[in-house]
This record gives sequence, C-alpha cells and structure tokens, in this order.
Amino acid sequence: MNITLEQAEKAIQEAKAKAAEIDTKMNIAIVDGGANLVAFTRMDGAWLGSLDISIKKAKTARFFDMDTGIVGSLSQPGGPLFNIEHSNSGLITFPGGIPIKNAEGTIIGAIGVSGSSVENDHTVAEAGAKAI
Amino acid sequence: MNITLEQAEKAIQEAKAKAAEIDTKMNIAIVDGGANLVAFTRMDGAWLGSLDISIKKAKTARFFDMDTGIVGSLSQPGGPLFNIEHSNSGLITFPGGIPIKNAEGTIIGAIGVSGSSVENDHTVAEAGAKAI
Amino acid sequence: MNITLEQAEKAIQEAKAKAAEIDTKMNIAIVDGGANLVAFTRMDGAWLGSLDISIKKAKTARFFDMDTGIVGSLSQPGGPLFNIEHSNSGLITFPGGIPIKNAEGTIIGAIGVSGSSVENDHTVAEAGAKAI
Amino acid sequence: MNITLEQAEKAIQEAKAKAAEIDTKMNIAIVDGGANLVAFTRMDGAWLGSLDISIKKAKTARFFDMDTGIVGSLSQPGGPLFNIEHSNSGLITFPGGIPIKNAEGTIIGAIGVSGSSVENDHTVAEAGAKAI
Repeated sequence: MNITLEQAEKAIQEAKAKAAEIDTKMNIAIVDGGANLVAFTRMDGAWLGSLDISIKKAKTARFFDMDTGIVGSLSQPGGPLFNIEHSNSGLITFPGGIPIKNAEGTIIGAIGVSGSSVENDHTVAEAGAKAI
Repeated sequence: MNITLEQAEKAIQEAKAKAAEIDTKMNIAIVDGGANLVAFTRMDGAWLGSLDISIKKAKTARFFDMDTGIVGSLSQPGGPLFNIEHSNSGLITFPGGIPIKNAEGTIIGAIGVSGSSVENDHTVAEAGAKAI
Repeated sequence: MNITLEQAEKAIQEAKAKAAEIDTKMNIAIVDGGANLVAFTRMDGAWLGSLDISIKKAKTARFFDMDTGIVGSLSQPGGPLFNIEHSNSGLITFPGGIPIKNAEGTIIGAIGVSGSSVENDHTVAEAGAKAI
Repeated sequence: MNITLEQAEKAIQEAKAKAAEIDTKMNIAIVDGGANLVAFTRMDGAWLGSLDISIKKAKTARFFDMDTGIVGSLSQPGGPLFNIEHSNSGLITFPGGIPIKNAEGTIIGAIGVSGSSVENDHTVAEAGAKAI
C-alpha cells in the first residue's frame, strides 16, 4: 500500500496553504511506503538548508513509523537512542516529520516539513498528513 | 534570477501532460539557478531508480548550462571530458536534462526527466522547459 | 505488493541449492518493492567484494524493473545510458540481478547474486527468482 | 576463526523465535570476524529504518568486541569516547549488538538486532548470540 502521486499532491497543497496561513516559507517532502521521494516543493524564499532536512524528516518518519519529534525525545544524551541520527545516511529527529495513513489506518508514506520553528514545521506537516 | 515555484509547477504540469500523451511514467525534477531542487514529482509506477537520475540530470544541466546529452557526447572514452560523471557527487550525462530560460534568455534553472528511453526523457523535459 | 520474508527465504534457499549444484560460492541478496534489503546470505568462502555487488544488483534490478545485464547493455561507452552507474549511490549493471514477480506478474522485489562468472551469477539468480 | 553461514543461520533462527515469543518484529544482522555481513533477515512489518541500524549494531559490536550498549555508555557528552559514532561510516552505540563467541570463547562475529525498545533488541540479540 503506497501513497499515490495524487494523494501526495493533495498533501503538499494543504501543507502549502497552512504554511501561507501562518506566514512561513517551507520545504515540503512526501515519501512513499518504501521511504522513497514521491513529491517535493520548496516555497519561494524558503531556507535552502531545509531542503535536505524536509526530505530526511519524511524518511525518518517512515523509517520508524512515528513522528520525528518522538524519535528525538529518545535520542538525547543519556537517552536510549542517543546518536541514532548516524544511521540511514542521516536522520532528522526534531519535529516536522509525520507518517501518512490511509482511511484504514495503514501507513502509506510520510511527510516532512522544514523552514521555520519546529512547532510551525509540525503544524504544517500535520495539515499535509491530514489531507489524506 | 531564479525560477519561481509557480514556474516550476507549470513546467512539471506540462512535462506530466507530455509524459501521459506519449504513454510514459516519469520522474520530473526542477532545480533553480543554484542547482538546488525546487520541485519534484514521481508519477505512479515510474521507475524507482529514475528518481535520483532525474534530479542528477537537472543538476547536471544547470551545472554546465547545457543539455545533459551534450555533456555526454564529450564524456565518452577518449573524449575531452571522459568520466566527468565522477564530479559533483555524481552526474548523469545522457539526454533528459535541459536548462530553463526566462523570456530574456537568462538561465534560471533546469529540468531533469527520467523514466523511459532517453529520447522520450528528452521530449518530456523539452515540454517542461518550454512552459516557462 | 511486497515480497514477504518467507518468500525471500525460499528464493535464497533455491539460489543456494543451485549455487551448490554448479559448485560456486555466492552472495545472495533479496530486496523488496521499495528496493530495501529483506534477506541476505553469504556462503562460506564466497568473495567478500561480492557482498556489496549482490546487494547493488538486487537494487538495480528493482530500480529499473529489468535484469541488470540489460541495463549494462545500454550503459556501454557510446550507448544511451553510458555511466548510469553513477546514480543511486552506485549501480551494478552486469548480469546477476533479476526482478521477482508474484503469480499475477507484479514485481514485488528483486534478487541479486554475485560470486562467480556473470553467467553463473545469472543462473543462480534465476533459480532464486523462479522459486516465487 | 570466522562464524560459518550455518552458525549465522542458526543464530538468526533463534533470534527470530525469541522476537516472535516477545511479540516484536526485528531486523537481524550477523557479521563475521572481519565485520562483514554474513546473513540478514527483516521480519515482515519490521521498521525500515532498523535495517541499517541492525547492521551497524553488529559491526559496532565486532569493531570493539563488546556489547554496543557499553560503547554507548562511554560515548555520552563528557565521556571518553564522545561522538565515536562518527567513525567507521557510522556506528550505533545503544543496546542490541553483541559479539558472538565460539565454544573456546574466541570472538568469531557479532549479531545486531533492531526493531523495538533497546531492551527487547538486546534480549533478541542475546538469544541469537547464545545459539552458537
């Protein structure tokens, strides 16, 4: 069960609308169930360094089927997953990556958003994930 | 002078329409003047390995401001640019990457397409590049 | 539609049996529909350098949904896909990688075999692919 | 003295049985004395991101001939091996990687397990290591 391009485009559209609503400029990435990129959008003026971060957030969310911020809460110094970010050619473990589920609750991909505060990144990712 | 997201989306839309018209499934990538990804689309069922190739084609076209196939004609054994593909974390030098110019003829980005024969890849990339 | 571990293990078992039958020592890798590793086996005494090659062959076969040798016939100097091996963090484009299909003919993964001549590698991969 | 494939397969079989017993889905990797992969298994539905982590845990355990969790206790901020994870193309230093010894106590390889809590990962790795 993989996200379709049509679903990915809808998620990006909703994420972009939310980003504009809260006056931010975002990089938005969608990966499929195999953690491979399906669609990507960089809004004009969005941070260039957030390009890679948004893709890594989407991959991280699908790699572990959870919000990236949860992984981050476990990977702090002294935490059980300290330095997990060294795996998989680099993870991003702060908020902004969210798994995408279909109507039956099966994970079919993930969205990653980067370009503002991690709170805003998460808000925009949530808007995209909910569009499916 | 950089391609805008709106222009990139228009290029992808035209490229997708051409891909459908000639019955192919494509990966389509747009980079800006800095050779950084602006937008990406993988059509349902398109080759997974063409994901990376489409992005590398777009980057290659902007790196040298010429069609990727031209670079490839110079990078053959015995040619002046033999094995240039080893640079820049990997180039793709067969057809399917084309610089994108604005109305004044200034290069503002590039498009890379991969998913079928190199002739079809080039045809679809041309449809996208001409949309600007 | 992804290959299951049970199917992957069956493919490896058949490939190993064929490898023993023709008196070779092989590295055998199985990837799923997302080109991610599902199972891997290195027979005692098999070439160490073939470890990575077998995995790259499996990935290459799934990346382009064709036997790796076909990609290689197109990537020769002067050919349409010259130096495609620079994409996707490295491809292997000589024989030994074969897509795996289910009973309905849908590609659900791929097998990659390395450790002997490319003819033997292909023969062993075929035995594995046919097991599904 | 290297682990044989037969031993590696036995270790994976025992690890899989333990993983099923405690109701988890694991990625299980076995490396030999040279820290090179011998066998790998990803159970259906196991986290995709744990694929790379299980292999890195097995390598880390053999690189330093100790449980990965011990390395992690030394690599915390202020600790003597802080950020050792940057070496060897990436280490994983939380529990789940264990050296494998033969009957004479000589280290002949290592097992790495990932897919659940680090406690569960370690439990499953121990079941595999003890099988030899």
